[in-house]
Amino acid sequence: METAMQYLKEDPWKITEKTFDTKWLGKAEAIMCLGNGYLGMRSVTEEKYVGETRNLFVAGTFNKFDENEVTELPNVPDMIGMELLFDGERLDLSKGKYSNYSRVLNLRTGELTRSFQWKHGQINVELTFKRCVSFAQKHVFTQQVLVENLGKEVTLEIISGIDGQKTNSGSQHFTEGDKSLTENRFLQMMPKTTQSKIAFVLSTAHNLEKTEDCYDGTKKRIEMGRRKIYNRYWQTLAPNETLKLEKFSSVYTTIDKEHLGKTPQDLKKIALEELKEIRKNGYQELAKASAAAWDKEVWSVFPIKIKTENTLDQLAIHFAKYHLHVMTPAHDERMNIGAKGLSGEGYKGHTFWDTEIFMLPYFTFTHPEIAKKLVTYRYLGLAGAHKKATENGYQGAQFPWEAAWPEDGETTPVWGAADILTGLPTKIWSGFIEQHITSDVTYGIKQFIDVTNDQQFAWEKGYEVIFDTAIFWASRLEWSEENQRFEILDVVGPDEYKEHVDNNAFTNHTAHWNIQLAISLYEELKKNQPEQFTKLAEKLLLNEAYQEWQAKVAAIYLPQPNEAGIIPQDDTYLTKKEIDLTKYKNDSQVGTLFHEYNLEQVNEMQVSKQADVLLLLFLFENLFPKEEKRLNWDYYEPKTLHDSSLSLSTHAILAADLGEVALSYDLFQQAINIDMGENMLSSNEGIHAASLGGIWQMTVFGYGGVRCLDGQLRIEPHLPKAWEALEFGIMWHQQPLKIEVTQEGFTVTNHGEQAIEFIAFDKVYLLEEQIKITF
Amino acid sequence: METAMQYLKEDPWKITEKTFDTKWLGKAEAIMCLGNGYLGMRSVTEEKYVGETRNLFVAGTFNKFDENEVTELPNVPDMIGMELLFDGERLDLSKGKYSNYSRVLNLRTGELTRSFQWKHGQINVELTFKRCVSFAQKHVFTQQVLVENLGKEVTLEIISGIDGQKTNSGSQHFTEGDKSLTENRFLQMMPKTTQSKIAFVLSTAHNLEKTEDCYDGTKKRIEMGRRKIYNRYWQTLAPNETLKLEKFSSVYTTIDKEHLGKTPQDLKKIALEELKEIRKNGYQELAKASAAAWDKEVWSVFPIKIKTENTLDQLAIHFAKYHLHVMTPAHDERMNIGAKGLSGEGYKGHTFWDTEIFMLPYFTFTHPEIAKKLVTYRYLGLAGAHKKATENGYQGAQFPWEAAWPEDGETTPVWGAADILTGLPTKIWSGFIEQHITSDVTYGIKQFIDVTNDQQFAWEKGYEVIFDTAIFWASRLEWSEENQRFEILDVVGPDEYKEHVDNNAFTNHTAHWNIQLAISLYEELKKNQPEQFTKLAEKLLLNEAYQEWQAKVAAIYLPQPNEAGIIPQDDTYLTKKEIDLTKYKNDSQVGTLFHEYNLEQVNEMQVSKQADVLLLLFLFENLFPKEEKRLNWDYYEPKTLHDSSLSLSTHAILAADLGEVALSYDLFQQAINIDMGENMLSSNEGIHAASLGGIWQMTVFGYGGVRCLDGQLRIEPHLPKAWEALEFGIMWHQQPLKIEVTQEGFTVTNHGEQAIEFIAFDKVYLLEEQIKITF
Repeated sequence: METAMQYLKEDPWKITEKTFDTKWLGKAEAIMCLGNGYLGMRSVTEEKYVGETRNLFVAGTFNKFDENEVTELPNVPDMIGMELLFDGERLDLSKGKYSNYSRVLNLRTGELTRSFQWKHGQINVELTFKRCVSFAQKHVFTQQVLVENLGKEVTLEIISGIDGQKTNSGSQHFTEGDKSLTENRFLQMMPKTTQSKIAFVLSTAHNLEKTEDCYDGTKKRIEMGRRKIYNRYWQTLAPNETLKLEKFSSVYTTIDKEHLGKTPQDLKKIALEELKEIRKNGYQELAKASAAAWDKEVWSVFPIKIKTENTLDQLAIHFAKYHLHVMTPAHDERMNIGAKGLSGEGYKGHTFWDTEIFMLPYFTFTHPEIAKKLVTYRYLGLAGAHKKATENGYQGAQFPWEAAWPEDGETTPVWGAADILTGLPTKIWSGFIEQHITSDVTYGIKQFIDVTNDQQFAWEKGYEVIFDTAIFWASRLEWSEENQRFEILDVVGPDEYKEHVDNNAFTNHTAHWNIQLAISLYEELKKNQPEQFTKLAEKLLLNEAYQEWQAKVAAIYLPQPNEAGIIPQDDTYLTKKEIDLTKYKNDSQVGTLFHEYNLEQVNEMQVSKQADVLLLLFLFENLFPKEEKRLNWDYYEPKTLHDSSLSLSTHAILAADLGEVALSYDLFQQAINIDMGENMLSSNEGIHAASLGGIWQMTVFGYGGVRCLDGQLRIEPHLPKAWEALEFGIMWHQQPLKIEVTQEGFTVTNHGEQAIEFIAFDKVYLLEEQIKITF
Repeated sequence: METAMQYLKEDPWKITEKTFDTKWLGKAEAIMCLGNGYLGMRSVTEEKYVGETRNLFVAGTFNKFDENEVTELPNVPDMIGMELLFDGERLDLSKGKYSNYSRVLNLRTGELTRSFQWKHGQINVELTFKRCVSFAQKHVFTQQVLVENLGKEVTLEIISGIDGQKTNSGSQHFTEGDKSLTENRFLQMMPKTTQSKIAFVLSTAHNLEKTEDCYDGTKKRIEMGRRKIYNRYWQTLAPNETLKLEKFSSVYTTIDKEHLGKTPQDLKKIALEELKEIRKNGYQELAKASAAAWDKEVWSVFPIKIKTENTLDQLAIHFAKYHLHVMTPAHDERMNIGAKGLSGEGYKGHTFWDTEIFMLPYFTFTHPEIAKKLVTYRYLGLAGAHKKATENGYQGAQFPWEAAWPEDGETTPVWGAADILTGLPTKIWSGFIEQHITSDVTYGIKQFIDVTNDQQFAWEKGYEVIFDTAIFWASRLEWSEENQRFEILDVVGPDEYKEHVDNNAFTNHTAHWNIQLAISLYEELKKNQPEQFTKLAEKLLLNEAYQEWQAKVAAIYLPQPNEAGIIPQDDTYLTKKEIDLTKYKNDSQVGTLFHEYNLEQVNEMQVSKQADVLLLLFLFENLFPKEEKRLNWDYYEPKTLHDSSLSLSTHAILAADLGEVALSYDLFQQAINIDMGENMLSSNEGIHAASLGGIWQMTVFGYGGVRCLDGQLRIEPHLPKAWEALEFGIMWHQQPLKIEVTQEGFTVTNHGEQAIEFIAFDKVYLLEEQIKITF
């Protein structure tokens, strides 16, 4: 497809667009988005086009439009936009002709560069736009525009400033706010969110050679409009003349952790001082410092190197890591990762189980200090989880399916769009009955403690979550007189094509695991650290809880394999109709099944949106024999449409585990294309955060064979044929390990001070410095 | 200018655009806007362009975004928009080539037609878009699209429905609202204004040949998004095949007068029934009924005919009358006319003195039943006017400078944009000190009573406003010990280039007139209709008020002519610096003075934004000798920049009065071009309602020489040289009069039952059937 993204074969660091088509604006906006975990900015062009989605988000700044909507990340006024008019003609690549076009995201430096020649009537100019969101100074972003006049003398008018007319698809979250100008140069606007009352300080300043210091109003003017403040410049460009414009912008808010308690006026001054400084230093300096921060904080930390002719695989790893850091609010544990990161309005910036099951492992294994923030967020969310449990008549901590500010509790919309036939609003069930989120949260915390061995976190926060979630699950169980067992009825499992099912295998097994974990932990802590434990036990009434766990755990129904070895996804799945899904599985678009069936019909078929039983087998592999995994893989993989971006990576890893590396590599190729691939519409709502975590997992868990099982490290690599070698690293119990894998064997090197233990192919190794293992 | 509007020389009914340029979108959107006084719709194109302003307003449905903003007419979800994709390529006239382009507003029928051929790559199609807002059924509008395939087989995708993502420049006034589909065909959405809690029912349905009844999802699909519900159609067009799509839409609200007390669900049903009916009848039927209503209610009522070679003059009259009816909520006296009508967000839909001084006379003299609604609005506004007087420490009725819902009182924003230098918000003074609005309201009511002789209105509503405003003025007067007289200090007069002036001539004279009128009325009513009067007097405590009026009226300072015969605009105007204004007066753009001076400097010059003293001389011509008018005309006209669209018509009429008909005609030409002219940006915020009223006034008051003076009709025509003859009509004391003017003389014909009196050239005539007068 001519409009697809281009990937330079020799360069595993660049995402490149070689043609511009307004049909596909969303793709580049999302997959080339910039950010630093505080700010997230879609890569819209400076000039406007119909169909663009001009988004700027600040992590954690949730606001609720009205009582009928749920809280969401508001779309911050735009400061990237610029209108460029040549002899009165607005720059618009739909008009005239452009050539030598490219838009390149350099993943290594975090810099976006767009350049082209534009001819339209008498106009003939060469334009280069650069921008970066600083990875070193999280409030700041900057732009540089070079205009070279290749034609006759031309008048250039530039309109640039702050535009607060943006909304979230029509919902306005901000008051207009005061606007101000300082030193005839620094533009500021101070809108406030309407419900959460977060004050924002937006600041911008320009540097335009020759014109910037004009005050006569014929070359530069300050103008204001509704929700707008901007400069207007006029400049004549002689033939061959080049003009350089730089723009420097920043965002502060009253929930910024480092400035808590400061007034908006204080922040205004702080922002102004910083803006003066960065404006003085110029674009180049800021871009350099940002690139250096990327290198120090991301690229030099456990780099993954793949020796292969398929450059795209290496690019995919960089792409995934880039986005994982762009989307993650590493600066503030009161925030977490959105399902679309900070790259789009989709899912409103809310946090799902995607964090624990898909993105968190990357941080736990390679950036434990960031992972700690992410798990602390769940600890801070206990209040909200208690609220949700109480509302639903349960005890303990029931984590929200969608989470925003920690105290908010459940933020899944209760009512969705009106039913198109009856006109009545449809109820969204996930917030009520997609309950596995609670054991997913426990899973993430348990993994974090196991991998990092962070005892302080465990005692101060982690154990409490594990116990509190077990208390929830114990209260959630329903006794079946008929079956003489505890069941979990009326849920949605990971496979969202099946609503209101009973005894979803994933849900029952993980609930059981959560309670069993609490029992073991209770016993172990009571025995080994009785004093500390007593405090926790008193706070959470653990002794009573323990009695209940003990009384119930053995009677929890755990769906068991049938005669054919297949674990039923739920009580009725295996009795449903099987249909030929080949054509939907081969379709490059997701959800095409619904072009022919409605949800009610789909509910009656053996078809899964995403990994469900198979995810259970992956996450808890030591609970199931390998043979069972194989049988279930063979059964469920053909029934799984991977219509969720959370699915392919799990299947790819399982396939690798089962030795089906070629098949796995096929799935890997599909998975890395969820965002990077040729489906130009797939990322419009934002990148797929979980699938990006999945890329790292497929590499390190799948081909690197790394797993944390019952607190033990296992390393059992198996490389795809296309890969000559794979090098990666993880942090295990605070010891940095480097793992180099070839087709023949692998080496594990311990760069830490302390020896660690790991298992490989059923053998336990004590790693002091280096161990080489041949397959 | 190639992009200017084209006016067909032979057709005085059509506004035509012959080229399409996205630079000038606002012009056609505003001056070709459609409506019926209930609905007002900017004529945006079906397809979207950057820079468009997609506005739909319903008169009177004010809402306040937050406590920092003032109430405004909210931008209703769009139902005109359609995306047309040919082989996946969005219709966009910036791409490819178009030919045979025209967009025509037929003023006579109220129908907008746009047609062109579009070639882009393989695509070669002829498109015709028609639409009309029904003048017969005020909730309804309809569209027709014809697509003729001139090229190879092409797939056409159409996306069309209801889009609620629109805002007022970023301020969202609506909740999302429920969406529904009925009979797989009728789309409805029910948003509600956020503060005023007005529920809207928006309904739309399509009729697409061949595809409309397909239910298999491959040719037609219903989709919903955030604040959106729409159909998606796919259809293949063979070479030479033509496709016809019709769309039918309606808007109802819970403040609709004829449905007060009904629930939104009731309205939903009513709208649905109507939509079914109009859909069955089809576009053509609806357009025909609408055109018939235009003819019956507007064009056949006192038509104005000009015999001249300058077709544009006749077109201007039609243009003015068209817009006066589009903008005027003739259906509901709780509403009035906005300064931009219903054609843009400018002035937020608020009503100013523009109504009484500029638009109302047209209705008073030709559509008294509509005029009665407009003056009743002010009577309903007495509560708000009392509130304002009380807030400012005055008594009686002080009318708001900007008015919205009658009870609202003052709705002028108190604080404007922050001062660009200090960063502090600037105070907007009009709402506090532009006080002549109160006598302007009285003027409009007095004129209405005099012209219509509507005694019922006078006794039930009109007299009360006259007395109540006189009470205000008496309380407003300030005693000057020094001058031993009553003064009115610190005001803004009609000339807004002079703020905080003392004893503005217009304000003092009209305040005096208002009190004097109350005194005469008091005496006359007391004497002639003592019984009725006593009730009113008791209600308003008129006896006490009369004492005060009598005590004060003679001591009110009325700025008198100086030795040169010049009435000082205010206490200091005549002492200020005079500068050469030629270049600003010759500039086709308004406000260019401010490119070289700031407001403070302008305040110190003898320069006026608009007619001030001269307006006084026009409105109250019998209070001033003719010689004084001449001297003041000579003095003020060169100092008046006409930077307000309320200015030129007054000067044109005065010039005609003074016998300077050639000069007057020059001003007439400038005045008719305020919206129709070649300044392509001038109407972006909306049409200039007052200037359109001015076009009628220049014709009937200026060249027809009609005036209502002290309750008497005067007719003293003087035609411009370019006009061979002028024919027009007015309603005087319920008697329809026809006036035919030539260069030689004029004939007045009374089509009513009763004789009436009029004055011409100082002679009183009793008109039974017809009188001919030769100059």
